[in-house]
Amino acid sequence: MTDVNRQWLLAARPHGMVKESDFRWHEAPVPTPGEGDVLVRVLYVSFDPAMRGWMDDRPSYIPPVGIGEPMRAGAVGRVEASRHPGFAEGDLVQGLFGWQDYALLNGAMLGPAAKIPAGMPPTWPLGVLGITGLTAYFGMLDLGRPKAGETVVVSGAAGATGSIAGQIAKLEGARVVGIAGGAEKCAWLVREAHFDAAIDYRGDDVGARLSALCPKGVDVFFDNVGGAILDAVLARIALRARVVLCGGISAYNEVEPPPGPRNLMNLVIQRGRMEGFIVIDYLARFGEGVAALRAHVEAGRLVHQEDVQVGLENAPRTFLRLFRGENRGKQLLQVA
Amino acid sequence: MTDVNRQWLLAARPHGMVKESDFRWHEAPVPTPGEGDVLVRVLYVSFDPAMRGWMDDRPSYIPPVGIGEPMRAGAVGRVEASRHPGFAEGDLVQGLFGWQDYALLNGAMLGPAAKIPAGMPPTWPLGVLGITGLTAYFGMLDLGRPKAGETVVVSGAAGATGSIAGQIAKLEGARVVGIAGGAEKCAWLVREAHFDAAIDYRGDDVGARLSALCPKGVDVFFDNVGGAILDAVLARIALRARVVLCGGISAYNEVEPPPGPRNLMNLVIQRGRMEGFIVIDYLARFGEGVAALRAHVEAGRLVHQEDVQVGLENAPRTFLRLFRGENRGKQLLQVA
Repeated sequence: MTDVNRQWLLAARPHGMVKESDFRWHEAPVPTPGEGDVLVRVLYVSFDPAMRGWMDDRPSYIPPVGIGEPMRAGAVGRVEASRHPGFAEGDLVQGLFGWQDYALLNGAMLGPAAKIPAGMPPTWPLGVLGITGLTAYFGMLDLGRPKAGETVVVSGAAGATGSIAGQIAKLEGARVVGIAGGAEKCAWLVREAHFDAAIDYRGDDVGARLSALCPKGVDVFFDNVGGAILDAVLARIALRARVVLCGGISAYNEVEPPPGPRNLMNLVIQRGRMEGFIVIDYLARFGEGVAALRAHVEAGRLVHQEDVQVGLENAPRTFLRLFRGENRGKQLLQVA
Repeated sequence: MTDVNRQWLLAARPHGMVKESDFRWHEAPVPTPGEGDVLVRVLYVSFDPAMRGWMDDRPSYIPPVGIGEPMRAGAVGRVEASRHPGFAEGDLVQGLFGWQDYALLNGAMLGPAAKIPAGMPPTWPLGVLGITGLTAYFGMLDLGRPKAGETVVVSGAAGATGSIAGQIAKLEGARVVGIAGGAEKCAWLVREAHFDAAIDYRGDDVGARLSALCPKGVDVFFDNVGGAILDAVLARIALRARVVLCGGISAYNEVEPPPGPRNLMNLVIQRGRMEGFIVIDYLARFGEGVAALRAHVEAGRLVHQEDVQVGLENAPRTFLRLFRGENRGKQLLQVA
């Protein structure tokens, strides 16, 4: 244990595309746990597109990160010192520990800090068995509700959430088409994740490919992207389609939200439903979701990728990988 | 009975705003009913914004009107001659009789032709007790599901459907704000239809007024308009809001569908739902809806306006009144 806590603080609210200079490197003393506190050494940090929204000072589902505060992020760590009866030195825990070497947990921060079950790889609670996988699980099953034989389309399909969402729909018996950027990701979707087909939005005419691959229309669309891809799918929804709005990464770095889809009125003609959700609302059912996902993973029915970068100094540029589509599956950073 | 059947035929598919010249006046012989046929003299014709969509040759929920065919429209009429055991001369009936003096019903056209119950004013089945009122009833109750104390916003609120939708929400105990064009319509909404407040989209800053009138956000939005008004409401939805897409008159006369709302991602942040519907899907429940609406009207709990123009020669320009916002409530044309 060193005596320096390296941190990335939020330096500025991004204007448009997030930049490395929106964060500031800082070295602080490692905090000393008081009575009831727990000191955690951060091992892995999780990167999610939604974190971009936490940097803006706009009304949202969670307060923005304050300027000068460590950048908020999900993470797993090891308890370095505990003065709390519920935690012992060496316990593996997960929580919103942020972009730093050490997190001091006390008061409200202790509640969400959950111990990682023995025998589970320490990165899984950040990916397939964490918020990422649970978002796919509840969004697809609760809102998308794919039925056997239906056609499901997933955007951001090679991403951490999209790849799980598509496979969940496959397990329900649906035909699944993924939309991803680049031939390599598309090949992975079909060969490894067993999607029925993939569309490369960088090289293909998305609308034409959707029409060819979904001749009876799209019954369920699980959207992580928004923008032109959402519009292309809305133009091709089937009767009583469900559009699950999980995210809209195409606009996260826009200064103003761009105009929405032209084909929205197709929701009327096709009696479609478009619905947004935040996975935190399913907190009471996380146990059910983790158990189901873990069983699928351990039985080999669900594949997942982890893209592990190394070194806290690389946190901002690791975050940027998400918006350049450089990540291969769940984006993580190994800190210790 | 004359021997001429005056008709307005669809002459051309409109390019942008519908024009009188998109229709063609035609005089045909009055048809002679054969065995099993019914001849109807049209009394009143109904005008609905959705008819604009029937003029386009695009995939929709109903086939387009063919070029050279009488313009399709809901209507009520009196049976002039019947060679069908189910109908007698003098019966009042409703159906899709179109813009003409006489309609010959046979085969598939006889199914939807329904007799109007004795004692009911003959225009009501086209307005408050017809597709118009039923659209408001099922859209608001089944999709909007307003609860007592919730805030409901209706666009096109002084229109035939919007005014009923808002009053249905009031009867459920909601606070109802209507958006309409012009001070006169807004005054009618508050004074006659007992809306809690009205916003004049022509004179007011809609966003600012919505913020002032809906400080806790909008729980249910019943939208007939789309465009900028939909966007302004989406920016102000409350947690778990329901957006009922009934129509989008602001774009019906656009050559291409315009860009959609910028604030669509608010559906994610607020876990909102946006859903389209077509009232025909509720056919099996029309009896329930008509009975409920009729009871409300007869008890004085539900007001409705009828805007009756006169003379078949005025059909195209009566239709145009809808898109200029000139109609006061349900737009009808008295033909005979």
